[in-house]
Amino acid sequence: MARQRLVVVGGVAAGMSAASRARRLDPDLEIVVFEATGYVSYGSCGLPYFIAGVVTEADDLIAITAERFRKERDIQVHTGHRVTGIDPAAGQLSVVELANGHERRVGFDRLVLATGGRPARPPIPGLDLPGVFGVRTVEDGLAIRGYLEERRPRRAVILGAGYIGLEMAEALVARGLEVTVLDLARQVLTTVDPDVAGRVQAELERHGVRVVLESPVEAVLGGDGAHGRAGSGGHGSTAGVRAVRAGGQSFPADLVLLGLGVRPQAELAEEAGLKLGASGAVAVTGRLETSQPGIYAAGDVAEVRHLVTGRPAYVPLGTTANKQGRVAGENAAGGDARFPGVVGTAVVKVFGLEVARTGLSEAQAKAEGFDAAGHAITHGVRAHYYPGPGPATVKLVAERGTGRLLGAQMVGEAGVAKRIDVVATALHAGWTVDRLAELDLSYAPPYSPVYDPILIAASETAKRL
Amino acid sequence: MARQRLVVVGGVAAGMSAASRARRLDPDLEIVVFEATGYVSYGSCGLPYFIAGVVTEADDLIAITAERFRKERDIQVHTGHRVTGIDPAAGQLSVVELANGHERRVGFDRLVLATGGRPARPPIPGLDLPGVFGVRTVEDGLAIRGYLEERRPRRAVILGAGYIGLEMAEALVARGLEVTVLDLARQVLTTVDPDVAGRVQAELERHGVRVVLESPVEAVLGGDGAHGRAGSGGHGSTAGVRAVRAGGQSFPADLVLLGLGVRPQAELAEEAGLKLGASGAVAVTGRLETSQPGIYAAGDVAEVRHLVTGRPAYVPLGTTANKQGRVAGENAAGGDARFPGVVGTAVVKVFGLEVARTGLSEAQAKAEGFDAAGHAITHGVRAHYYPGPGPATVKLVAERGTGRLLGAQMVGEAGVAKRIDVVATALHAGWTVDRLAELDLSYAPPYSPVYDPILIAASETAKRL
Repeated sequence: MARQRLVVVGGVAAGMSAASRARRLDPDLEIVVFEATGYVSYGSCGLPYFIAGVVTEADDLIAITAERFRKERDIQVHTGHRVTGIDPAAGQLSVVELANGHERRVGFDRLVLATGGRPARPPIPGLDLPGVFGVRTVEDGLAIRGYLEERRPRRAVILGAGYIGLEMAEALVARGLEVTVLDLARQVLTTVDPDVAGRVQAELERHGVRVVLESPVEAVLGGDGAHGRAGSGGHGSTAGVRAVRAGGQSFPADLVLLGLGVRPQAELAEEAGLKLGASGAVAVTGRLETSQPGIYAAGDVAEVRHLVTGRPAYVPLGTTANKQGRVAGENAAGGDARFPGVVGTAVVKVFGLEVARTGLSEAQAKAEGFDAAGHAITHGVRAHYYPGPGPATVKLVAERGTGRLLGAQMVGEAGVAKRIDVVATALHAGWTVDRLAELDLSYAPPYSPVYDPILIAASETAKRL
Repeated sequence: MARQRLVVVGGVAAGMSAASRARRLDPDLEIVVFEATGYVSYGSCGLPYFIAGVVTEADDLIAITAERFRKERDIQVHTGHRVTGIDPAAGQLSVVELANGHERRVGFDRLVLATGGRPARPPIPGLDLPGVFGVRTVEDGLAIRGYLEERRPRRAVILGAGYIGLEMAEALVARGLEVTVLDLARQVLTTVDPDVAGRVQAELERHGVRVVLESPVEAVLGGDGAHGRAGSGGHGSTAGVRAVRAGGQSFPADLVLLGLGVRPQAELAEEAGLKLGASGAVAVTGRLETSQPGIYAAGDVAEVRHLVTGRPAYVPLGTTANKQGRVAGENAAGGDARFPGVVGTAVVKVFGLEVARTGLSEAQAKAEGFDAAGHAITHGVRAHYYPGPGPATVKLVAERGTGRLLGAQMVGEAGVAKRIDVVATALHAGWTVDRLAELDLSYAPPYSPVYDPILIAASETAKRL
């Protein structure tokens, strides 16, 4: 019997996890990875810290190099190779070597699609101007850092007040820039509710970031007063970005970053006839199999089951990508693993604040049809007599009638990032807030009050349902 | 109908929680609290930080003063009153006003026993010498601080390497003393396994604490070369403590602290005919009712249901005392609350380390008859490229065959104290380690690696069962 070949399309978190897992389970499998960028196995989430200078070398963001995958795991990694078409029936794909444009066809017996996501690029004129960057790949990070060092921009405008937008605001303030964040929404960070977001906005403003909300971006303007062509991949004005026009105002900018969210790079899957979900990401089973038997999808290109709603969702995060990759790799190697799903846990550092969320926000829960109530408390994260950081706000969201816990949000100077995990765990368990209030959580004066803020929030929320 | 009277015996965590809860549920109830010390509603756990000087005023340790309980909650608080006898059949108790020795009888309709615990005092000669202190009450804290400031002791010997012993070692080092910790066991902190305890011992020694193990204390010696009378409440030598003899060696000491554990102050209950459990603490039902209907017990005098073993246990901790107090108070006021039980979660700061545990240690699990296996991993608590604290050790204990999670221990420079709560929550849910490995936990480079150390420990442990 000929050696079976697994091809993995995309070599970042999900792709390399899949390849590694498959190798561990089947030493005989031929494993080939095609990655369009020049790097594999890197942490996109580290880019703001690389750009800020907290992480000094881009290489530090890479968990395992392509070279080591080849040598230590017998995985044939091809960077700078873009897969341009998949023919599931023939078990073949087309791949272009970007350096020279050479295209070839490669056969596969099994396939894992891990093409990831890309920064959303709405049809705004001028996004192709020099000085406008996404924050996604190692190349993006190097380009932004190079631009900061060579062009010394003074004023940055960040389009979008989501996770990456806020992390980049902090990074650019650390670099000495004047930073403006624009968003279409009425609040920053729409994955949390307005009451929690308000504290985040105050923190941004306290650090000199200008936050402009309900401000639709109309155009990015170049140095010659004109703007580039909308949606084109061309160069536009060579003079570079000069300003952003949004909500009728003009915001001077020497640097513009895209933080408008992540979209699945699902074109390849769609053209190959794989079914997409309502989110536009690839629909998958619990085994992460696509509508085409034997083809798996994982990471930011794929949907994921949300355990609170029980429905597919698009939650493009690094943790999920890694875990899905393992499951896809195991199944592609002949195993039978399942990806249990997510509860939507996330945390972000915004200057001196930790901001965390899990499950559904109050707004999301209502949009999903739950009769949801949210209640927030603010309480110290240590014993009242123990010196240290200020209080944290804990908001719980629960279903009226049943008391079922639906989600939580927390914000505070410390003691938030990992506390949210207790609620995430309770969501996995499908508990009520009453049950959450019964937990035997750790206590010592330097780390917690006698009643952990989560317990206080749980009993206060239970009273109000 | 005459006004019903609830008497609460003991006014610290459990007692004042019970009184407050009863008041909230029944505005008409007469509520009387007798507390032997001069303070109510204080945090014993804060004493090491008061003695170290991190907390400057003893008053800061008090959540709510006796005065405020009287004025704001209509609770008749009598400090300096010791209850000396209870007659359940007659619904009467005897109480002595310590300031003048006057004894009186007081009737009750309902009773909550919250007499707490006391530092274990084995029959070692010399424990009554001046300069030997327990670390339990506000009076203890004031006495130790006064002794430190007036006598300026240079060398301290701490008997016992448990939570309070190690917290006091840190406090006294902060005060500039030479500190020796003696323990009978082969390791410090016997609530964790030896592998985890080893890292704690190294931290103590790194900070100049001398740790002497397997060293039974034979006597505490006074300044005149003699020692006081074992077990007596008298004054012994007025010259004060000079040394501790243990394991055949002599350890010079100007100050000796008792950290040999906590024992239930259950004599009153026993004399009143209430059933004690195997631990020597008062046996209670899920409603915290004692063997005498209508009499409730809560806090360090009572047993508690351990949710991992399903059996009663003695786990005297402030969190449990507060929660049990609420349940006892609710039931004493005519409610029907249940105390769900504990999983034995605890955390302690030892210099630069956070040391946490929940459930059963490997040793405890084996002693309880489980076919238990423990596995420890050591991993960073942030993204590998993000600067910060050193790695944490996470040890999980699970049952062979079933894969059931039985407990966890963690030790590290940061990111440990509240991470243990995820495992505590999983223990409440009764999960396997496989299930633990599936959790959607928060991730951002400043707070966690992509795979949280708990997830890594869970999948590594699962492989070994």
